[in-house]
Amino acid sequence: MSQRPQALFAMAAENVPLVFPPEVLARLRESVDIDPDLVARDFTDPRVRDVLARTEILVTGWGCPLIDETVLDAAPRLRAVLHSAGSVKSFATPGIWQRGIAVSSAAVANALPVAEYTLAMILLAGKDVLAARDRMRTSRTSSGWGIIPGIGNHGRRVGVIGASRIGRRVLELLRPFDLRPALTDPYVDEAAAAALGVPLLPLDDLLRTSDIVTVHAPETPETHHLIGRRELALMPDGAVLVNTARGALVDHDALVTELRAERLTAILDVTDPEPLPTDSPLYDLPGAFITPHLAGSQGNELARLGLTITEETERLVAGGKPAYGVDLAALEREA
Amino acid sequence: MSQRPQALFAMAAENVPLVFPPEVLARLRESVDIDPDLVARDFTDPRVRDVLARTEILVTGWGCPLIDETVLDAAPRLRAVLHSAGSVKSFATPGIWQRGIAVSSAAVANALPVAEYTLAMILLAGKDVLAARDRMRTSRTSSGWGIIPGIGNHGRRVGVIGASRIGRRVLELLRPFDLRPALTDPYVDEAAAAALGVPLLPLDDLLRTSDIVTVHAPETPETHHLIGRRELALMPDGAVLVNTARGALVDHDALVTELRAERLTAILDVTDPEPLPTDSPLYDLPGAFITPHLAGSQGNELARLGLTITEETERLVAGGKPAYGVDLAALEREA
Repeated sequence: MSQRPQALFAMAAENVPLVFPPEVLARLRESVDIDPDLVARDFTDPRVRDVLARTEILVTGWGCPLIDETVLDAAPRLRAVLHSAGSVKSFATPGIWQRGIAVSSAAVANALPVAEYTLAMILLAGKDVLAARDRMRTSRTSSGWGIIPGIGNHGRRVGVIGASRIGRRVLELLRPFDLRPALTDPYVDEAAAAALGVPLLPLDDLLRTSDIVTVHAPETPETHHLIGRRELALMPDGAVLVNTARGALVDHDALVTELRAERLTAILDVTDPEPLPTDSPLYDLPGAFITPHLAGSQGNELARLGLTITEETERLVAGGKPAYGVDLAALEREA
Repeated sequence: MSQRPQALFAMAAENVPLVFPPEVLARLRESVDIDPDLVARDFTDPRVRDVLARTEILVTGWGCPLIDETVLDAAPRLRAVLHSAGSVKSFATPGIWQRGIAVSSAAVANALPVAEYTLAMILLAGKDVLAARDRMRTSRTSSGWGIIPGIGNHGRRVGVIGASRIGRRVLELLRPFDLRPALTDPYVDEAAAAALGVPLLPLDDLLRTSDIVTVHAPETPETHHLIGRRELALMPDGAVLVNTARGALVDHDALVTELRAERLTAILDVTDPEPLPTDSPLYDLPGAFITPHLAGSQGNELARLGLTITEETERLVAGGKPAYGVDLAALEREA
């Protein structure tokens, strides 16, 4: 009989081969006994319950069913929930922590592509590249542009809302450039901001002084419409709003008003609602650049999530502590 | 009488306030005697000739007229030509070097925005973001995307053609990402490539093995259609070509054929010809993302060129050597 701890996948089954492609799965199976063909979508399934009874590590992912008291009761040997995606909010319950089960996630790896999308958009927005492309396509000429005033990535002020993993990674990625980042975050103090190398500003000041504002705050009752009509009005003429976090952080009616007035522009990977209704003006407004919620891990980036969780599994099985633990308090603040 | 050396602007006059805005101009005038209202567009102008006779430093820029033997004869005290833009090729003649006059340029500063545009496009191309936006705009829905296979910036191979200042800066900027860059450059040896931290490949191998190819080679007779029909055919299905260098490096007829077949996609800030004719298929092809030659210094980035040349002036006036000297041999290889 195998000496490796029993593990079990709990996620949308079709994602298993994407997040754990053959080479990643093979490495995971060196540490734990896990069957890629038995993926829990329903913890009441008899085959799942049978394995769950001896499972020590649950490898979760998008589509993981709720892990409530009944599930925990059926998993007496469970010692870790390792989530191969960002937030565990949709399925984790306080009972997991109360029973001393370790919770960890690949949020650190999931932050990378979102920060990369954000960096790319900041660099392009500073040069007005996306709008220039649309205008060139419509006018069918590149002549008459010459030197374009009022744009450029030299000294432009970038306001980062939220020192989340993604927000911190964005700040890190901004370092090689001649940009002036600033941060707002109610959970960050001056010392922590100084360690990140950026000035800490109240939200209103950040909005007033930034040429580009990028949102990396969690969605909580407090952050609903964090960027509302009043906040948008604080942004200077020509400023750009980038949102890769959650649509509900931004009041979309107020945003549409600003975009219609051609006072602001917006780059949105997330919207409210999502998907947008077919008649949303955001599809057509020249100042709106919207993408279909793809900034997070996609394609080959999914394997990086699986790899992160495989490494976490290896640490646990070797008797170490999880590197990317999620505590119950952090969960409350999480996107 | 002033103790500061005489200097003279030679460029398109309208660019002087953009490249040397008040604070930069004031700093320049602490080192040299230069009149921002006398800008040479024609060295035969009597007022220009009068100043030229005692000019020690020519501060050149876009639109600088040819500096030939007649001009050099009229500038017996000239000891430096400091160019506030990229290449001096359009106006510099060998006589400058033959007379021992120092030549320097702000190419180092001009490389920054081009490399930034390139980095942003590499990151977005890896996720197919630009095409996704266009498709979302047409379909008027973001639903049905879910997880998108075949994309992502984890382990994607990026082929850099040319270790020019821009090419080197692109390699530097690629470091924080999980991408696999490679380089081709006939003037670079294995040791130099190793110092840049990238494998050196022959052009054909680079094209065969790269998911994204970015061109940073100079335009010379040898590089005309460097990326021709044969070279494009070497690129794998779904590969992306980024060109921010010169349009003529790429055979546009061959490129259009590949784009029409939806085998490759292209992001072009430069085209051949430029501007494109109104009926060019590149405006409409879904796999083409074209921008109006704006990747170089624009807007506030122009002041960085002026600042670079102001610092160079300060070094020279203090008796130092130019930091960004251009030699005649380098000129031959320059874009």
